[in-house]
Amino acid sequence: MATITHPSQPVLIDGQWITEDTATSFRSTDPQTSEPIERSYPVSAWATCDRALNAAQQAFQVSRNLEPAALAAFLDDYAARIEADRDELVAIAHRETGLPTAPRLAAVELPRTVNQLRMAAEAARTESWRMPIIDRAANIRSCFIALGPVAVFGPNNFPFAFNSISGGDFAAAIAAGNPVIAKANTSHPATTERLGQLVAQSMNATGMPRGLVQLIYRTSHEDGERLVADPRLGAVGYTGARTAGLRLKAAADRVGTPFYAELSSVNPVVFLPGALAERCDTLVEEYVTSGLMGAGQFCTNPGLLLVVKGPTTDAFIQGVVSRYSAAPAGTLLSAGVQHSLVESVGILTRAGAECLAGGGALAGPRCAVANTVLRITGERFLEDPHVFQTEAFGNAVLITVCDSVEQIVRIIESLEGNLTGCIYSDTRGSDDGVYDRVADALQQRVGRLLNDKMPTGVAVSPAMNHGGPYPATSHPGFTAVGIPASMLRFGKLTCYDAVREPRLPRVLRDANPTGTTYRCIDGAWTLD
Amino acid sequence: MATITHPSQPVLIDGQWITEDTATSFRSTDPQTSEPIERSYPVSAWATCDRALNAAQQAFQVSRNLEPAALAAFLDDYAARIEADRDELVAIAHRETGLPTAPRLAAVELPRTVNQLRMAAEAARTESWRMPIIDRAANIRSCFIALGPVAVFGPNNFPFAFNSISGGDFAAAIAAGNPVIAKANTSHPATTERLGQLVAQSMNATGMPRGLVQLIYRTSHEDGERLVADPRLGAVGYTGARTAGLRLKAAADRVGTPFYAELSSVNPVVFLPGALAERCDTLVEEYVTSGLMGAGQFCTNPGLLLVVKGPTTDAFIQGVVSRYSAAPAGTLLSAGVQHSLVESVGILTRAGAECLAGGGALAGPRCAVANTVLRITGERFLEDPHVFQTEAFGNAVLITVCDSVEQIVRIIESLEGNLTGCIYSDTRGSDDGVYDRVADALQQRVGRLLNDKMPTGVAVSPAMNHGGPYPATSHPGFTAVGIPASMLRFGKLTCYDAVREPRLPRVLRDANPTGTTYRCIDGAWTLD
Repeated sequence: MATITHPSQPVLIDGQWITEDTATSFRSTDPQTSEPIERSYPVSAWATCDRALNAAQQAFQVSRNLEPAALAAFLDDYAARIEADRDELVAIAHRETGLPTAPRLAAVELPRTVNQLRMAAEAARTESWRMPIIDRAANIRSCFIALGPVAVFGPNNFPFAFNSISGGDFAAAIAAGNPVIAKANTSHPATTERLGQLVAQSMNATGMPRGLVQLIYRTSHEDGERLVADPRLGAVGYTGARTAGLRLKAAADRVGTPFYAELSSVNPVVFLPGALAERCDTLVEEYVTSGLMGAGQFCTNPGLLLVVKGPTTDAFIQGVVSRYSAAPAGTLLSAGVQHSLVESVGILTRAGAECLAGGGALAGPRCAVANTVLRITGERFLEDPHVFQTEAFGNAVLITVCDSVEQIVRIIESLEGNLTGCIYSDTRGSDDGVYDRVADALQQRVGRLLNDKMPTGVAVSPAMNHGGPYPATSHPGFTAVGIPASMLRFGKLTCYDAVREPRLPRVLRDANPTGTTYRCIDGAWTLD
Repeated sequence: MATITHPSQPVLIDGQWITEDTATSFRSTDPQTSEPIERSYPVSAWATCDRALNAAQQAFQVSRNLEPAALAAFLDDYAARIEADRDELVAIAHRETGLPTAPRLAAVELPRTVNQLRMAAEAARTESWRMPIIDRAANIRSCFIALGPVAVFGPNNFPFAFNSISGGDFAAAIAAGNPVIAKANTSHPATTERLGQLVAQSMNATGMPRGLVQLIYRTSHEDGERLVADPRLGAVGYTGARTAGLRLKAAADRVGTPFYAELSSVNPVVFLPGALAERCDTLVEEYVTSGLMGAGQFCTNPGLLLVVKGPTTDAFIQGVVSRYSAAPAGTLLSAGVQHSLVESVGILTRAGAECLAGGGALAGPRCAVANTVLRITGERFLEDPHVFQTEAFGNAVLITVCDSVEQIVRIIESLEGNLTGCIYSDTRGSDDGVYDRVADALQQRVGRLLNDKMPTGVAVSPAMNHGGPYPATSHPGFTAVGIPASMLRFGKLTCYDAVREPRLPRVLRDANPTGTTYRCIDGAWTLD
């Protein structure tokens, strides 16, 4: 993206679209042509961040006490506007990200985004997310309440479903009663702007406080750190690159502000020998479909395969190599993603990984890298586990060929935290003798353990955990996907001790406020 | 405490009591005489920490898969041994802390400690703490599992109930399936050693892995930071002084290890005008009893009173001053506590607080400070809110006399996070017009909001929140007291996606494993 000085698009601060008198601005780029897109967006000054923080704090005085139905109405209204604006949104996002219009953007991601907003609305309405706990004998009651304004930094790879102004963090923070300061991902500002226009309409239509949702596009690194460390914030949600995320996390940590980050993951997949012997071709097909989906640009992309050496394994690798070589290379989200991918592949090959397919950027203006398959031995991996778990975000995979299942376990134990881990085993029981050992190690390293299934689908289920030990995320106890669980990140546990009954939050009063709010009363979960 | 070179007591590492060949050691002091107590304890070398971390990691391989009944049997056995050893434990703790033998140590704190261990055993047994969530249609299931070895740093003020080897953090970490490396508080090493002997007996008697519970007494600052940042740890529990805690927190934050700290709190109490008008004498009595309990050495000690100026307020203050002046000054836990208290009182008075009673250390060898009452105006408080919320840990209170309830609200808004906040209002409704405004501000700043009740009692209830926004604690979503909620700090959220049914943790299999485990199945909490 180019840094230029053209007049730039306005930011949304305290309910107003404001054109910043700013020195620098930037433009996004069409990754299919590497041509810059017309509009310029501002690099906001600190004064703008400061105004946003003040407005968010003002809005929080109101939002934390809004009727649940009012917040829900806002979220539902916004969901409907996104649905109605589908064609325009998809066209803009396609141009900025290169992601396919259909099915990906129009039939999968946009409906998922709308669905998440509606689930958040429903969660706000029933209030079960508050986890009300009532001890009648002691007259002590507790629940989660709104925490404070949340700054959301969205990633490049989901322009709708994880967008800072429409995605999972946004929906969870708002439904819990918090204002959001959305910081656009700089690779798709126009998509974010369009969503910002819709959200502003929804705020007006449903009478929300002006500072409930605000939008900036970019700041200096210094102002970004200052923003997340500002005492007016309650929490930060961040999904994106690890280096930038860790810098922001350090700033938030210093002042004790919860910083929920999703940073990186190689998502190990173990193919046990019996599974390969039983259904090698099926597994090749299943893996390749998942590995190349969205040009591999998923947080849960399976980037590290662990197999035991042997003839079927050779056939499996050959199958992956021929499919990868035959498949067209998808368009990457940006020149930055292309650059990082080539760099990561270089780190892996320089450390000794053998390149079996692809390995370099495609010629021409389109942002793309040849589908890449790398191979390393388990022994070599264990000599340098830090290097061999380098995330190669995009359409590249590292296959680690081990001497034994025991070596696979040692490799798993050498891994950092990951979002997911998969184990494929046969259906006739021949892998059962080693499964427990592998699973016991793997479940400590990942947020989600799968059997015979690829990790790229992240269902929006109350049982989902899209999380995992550091550095996959910044806290092993929370999920970023799955409503209502994801809302707890943006809630504050608050206990009411001998507080007079009419003064209690309505979920803690004697009567169930909705008839559908689950509460734990004297040790029993009930709708009573 | 003196740093000397006598042979020192052994540490408990990997099931063995090991005498360290260490350069330095220290002794605790009887705060009633300022005489050192006989035994010397080691400042452990890094090699000892390293051995403990290895042993903890080994023990974790076993402990995370122990039958819940086995962990529970260990906790119950330990509870029984503490009960049986009551006289000896109380005598040792009394000598090291100066806390009264009865009722405090023998009749309140020791039974509470035993009760917590038994509640933790019961929670381990029923497994409801795991919060199992089952989505049958998607075949996605999640629950909390053990996180990893936990280092526990206990405070000086509860030698049993918050001791690193017997208190709330210990019980919660163990019941969740994690090994504990207990770091004794240096003001009561002999109490901790005695508990360590009992816990070692329990580990042997119930067949626990050798490294499940280990004990060291002290490290260098550098080794302490290295310990909490070691990748072999899953989490840290810390209760104690703010400066030392923040140094350790920064070290843990850098490597993404959850650091659950309880650091400081002034526990504001608002007496609304109607309450003072209605029952001034009662409130004096109620306040003084709470404020001087344990010589004010409670994390929830009410250290900041907020009142509106007027004749009843003057009478209230006079009442507090005369009771504080008449009451004997309690023995403080150590010379260090005495020193800090005098220093904090000095900070407050130099900033303009008027000293109405006490203010200095008592003469003689006993560690004690005269019961101290300070007064400041609300206007002056707001000029320097950072200074006036200095915690004076011990028997001192700052009464802030405000111009109006509106000024009280502004002061509350200027406060850092606290564990508790209380509002006293009249019973005839004359304070109702302002209550909501005060409570709305206060509940955002505290973990527990009380009505007409002092905060010093912390019931062990599932609805309790002994927590609060930073810097009262390091995370606004967790409690350190109240089982099973406190266990979640030491759990890892783990999702099982399409995992074959027999391979699931037993709480996620189709059948309820105990008949008493609450699980959320398809959106409904149930025992089915």
